Amino acid sequence: MSRPSIDGQRLLAWIRALGQVGRDDAGRLIRLAASDADKAGRDTLVQWIREAGLDLAVDRVGNVFGIWRETRHGDKAPVLVGSHIDTVIDAGIYDGCYGVLAGLEVIQTLRTAGFVPARPIAVAAFTNEEGVRYAPDMMGSLVHAGGLPVDEALATIGTDGTELGAELARIGYAGSEEPGFLRPHAYVELHVEQGPLLDREGVTVGTVETLQGISWQRITIEGEANHAGTTPMAMRRDAGHAAARVVTFLRDRAKSANAPTVATVGCMSFEPNAINVIPARAVFTVDLRDPDEGRLAAEEAALAAYLEELAAAEDVTISVERLARFEPVIFDRRIVALVEDTAQARGLASRRMSSGAGHDAQMIARIAPSAMIFVPSVDGIRHNPRELTHDRNLIAGANVLLDVVARLAGETGETDDR
Amino acid sequence: MSRPSIDGQRLLAWIRALGQVGRDDAGRLIRLAASDADKAGRDTLVQWIREAGLDLAVDRVGNVFGIWRETRHGDKAPVLVGSHIDTVIDAGIYDGCYGVLAGLEVIQTLRTAGFVPARPIAVAAFTNEEGVRYAPDMMGSLVHAGGLPVDEALATIGTDGTELGAELARIGYAGSEEPGFLRPHAYVELHVEQGPLLDREGVTVGTVETLQGISWQRITIEGEANHAGTTPMAMRRDAGHAAARVVTFLRDRAKSANAPTVATVGCMSFEPNAINVIPARAVFTVDLRDPDEGRLAAEEAALAAYLEELAAAEDVTISVERLARFEPVIFDRRIVALVEDTAQARGLASRRMSSGAGHDAQMIARIAPSAMIFVPSVDGIRHNPRELTHDRNLIAGANVLLDVVARLAGETGETDDR
Repeated sequence: MSRPSIDGQRLLAWIRALGQVGRDDAGRLIRLAASDADKAGRDTLVQWIREAGLDLAVDRVGNVFGIWRETRHGDKAPVLVGSHIDTVIDAGIYDGCYGVLAGLEVIQTLRTAGFVPARPIAVAAFTNEEGVRYAPDMMGSLVHAGGLPVDEALATIGTDGTELGAELARIGYAGSEEPGFLRPHAYVELHVEQGPLLDREGVTVGTVETLQGISWQRITIEGEANHAGTTPMAMRRDAGHAAARVVTFLRDRAKSANAPTVATVGCMSFEPNAINVIPARAVFTVDLRDPDEGRLAAEEAALAAYLEELAAAEDVTISVERLARFEPVIFDRRIVALVEDTAQARGLASRRMSSGAGHDAQMIARIAPSAMIFVPSVDGIRHNPRELTHDRNLIAGANVLLDVVARLAGETGETDDR
Repeated sequence: MSRPSIDGQRLLAWIRALGQVGRDDAGRLIRLAASDADKAGRDTLVQWIREAGLDLAVDRVGNVFGIWRETRHGDKAPVLVGSHIDTVIDAGIYDGCYGVLAGLEVIQTLRTAGFVPARPIAVAAFTNEEGVRYAPDMMGSLVHAGGLPVDEALATIGTDGTELGAELARIGYAGSEEPGFLRPHAYVELHVEQGPLLDREGVTVGTVETLQGISWQRITIEGEANHAGTTPMAMRRDAGHAAARVVTFLRDRAKSANAPTVATVGCMSFEPNAINVIPARAVFTVDLRDPDEGRLAAEEAALAAYLEELAAAEDVTISVERLARFEPVIFDRRIVALVEDTAQARGLASRRMSSGAGHDAQMIARIAPSAMIFVPSVDGIRHNPRELTHDRNLIAGANVLLDVVARLAGETGETDDR
């Protein structure tokens, strides 16, 4: 078989068409999971899956699959591609949808090109990846991977008081397949980068080898409220100042480390928060991320040691509450290498990287060899109507996915040497 | 004349008795300016002024004076002592009242001891020093010093919608004297320290030589909101981190300077204030104080220069809004030296210091040589029912005031060699 390429115009048309489905009166794209807008988006996708000649399957948590399975495949596990089509409020048109529609485009291209896969190829759109209406996010892929019982997921009450199961039934997407029915041979997710790296470096393909581990902590520092004018500097127990020390400590440490560690203090509050009163209390959050578990744990330990020193030096009391902790995900090194080789063969600049945001791939990685492919997002803008990936990059990324899927599925008669 | 001493038990009884006037149902001491509780406090003071045989005078802004003037004094300017008897909400019993009642006690002691002053001696209770109900604070002394027209002061609308002039008339303290009618020869204010210095150092007498200048600024830093996971440290424009740098800069600078400069960041807020978003904006206040105008201006300039560097280094935009600026007050060096000598003669440990809080003395200093005497407040607690000055220190401070007043007034036949 000569090497085919995807139909770029068809893919772009699909992305733009789906991007018009579910806009509110103000023109904002809002397709929250299991809403009427989500139904409209799902209906659109299902129609395209059918037009592509694929088998449609919907599982009990509403995950939608388009499956290309030939009789000769028997019960062979499929190569699965996909992502999600639910959105945040006032979203851009690429996040999630690009991976699903590129997956559909890849299958259609392979079929049209006369490719004879040695195993099934399927595309998935997972339910409620964004988690705006129902928590947790990445719910559909989590249920698919067996990380959350489906009945528990369906009983989730949303921010608007609705129950996910009832809403899925209402919009006609409470399917009959048991979640996890389609255990993949491999999973590849194509996604726009939700950060600025590729765009700033002018690199087309991000070969995602890890997904960062996340550590969220809330830190409370208690000092002593005193008059700003009458309390000499040496006699202060200034909780606000101690909090500022933590912010600069984290920043300096992360910035000087020759590592991808990121550290962020996003929330901060002082009490009593009065101009002429030394803060008695400061409460702030620390978001630490690193693709390496050992390094993430070391960063947490370094912070803990610093807090201990600080408490003694500044005569303040510090307490730490752990809000969330996820270990890093390490993607399948053979698929990662395949993505890299494929990009090179296509003449595309690529770089290995870590994903700082969560994706369905991290869930599916629990049950199958998985990896992700990123393409550049202009200025790294995400969850915003200004989100933009240039057409040439959308097409390039889909062609990389095409080659990777063809290789992972193998042609009948070929040895599956992955 | 042999050296007399004040009647400590009478002074303490007065302080405690006035401290019971104006308590609410929950037992909280609340004598806001020109309220019914303030009237009750004023009535109590006026009764004691009359019992001491002094002339009573009330001016149009409600300042109350007890005056010991003999015919032979003619129109000689009086030595004035005093402070205020209005309070904050849920106050302690010493702030202000101590200075007024010690002043009354000093006059009564001198009269009883047969002291023959060469000029009048008077005690003042200035209206609305605390400024809780009507702004600005230190209003009565400001009007007395000519810094605010009396009619403007009387037209002030309070936080409860009342007009000060109407309230003073209602409680019977809209007097007939024109404010400033009593231009002092010298003014001395005895007050509990509103900070912890004397208490922590075990020193009985604070010789207040300056009152700090104050600079209040609100600083806004604008960076860029980005995802905490996907934005590498080197690509961040983190407004929260930049704000933390300012906090540590101010602290380090003030703490390492061999100067009484104090710097406080009391208010802080981040936007969007989300755990996984790099702060796009940080808004915070800076309270800088120094008893020396040159040094205060230099600190402001150093901060401005640092902000400029920081904006460039962190690629953030910084804007500064000036909220308040008062130059330091330098008290009369001869009275300051007299206080110091007097404390020494009484065998009391003393130290020179700067007042970090505002006092009526800073207003009267505009029109007469003035100074202040501080006594220790346990733990520096202020504006709080736990405010406490030990009896022995209350008595010691009043005796210092006694000697200073006697010296400033001079005995007939003595040369006024102040």
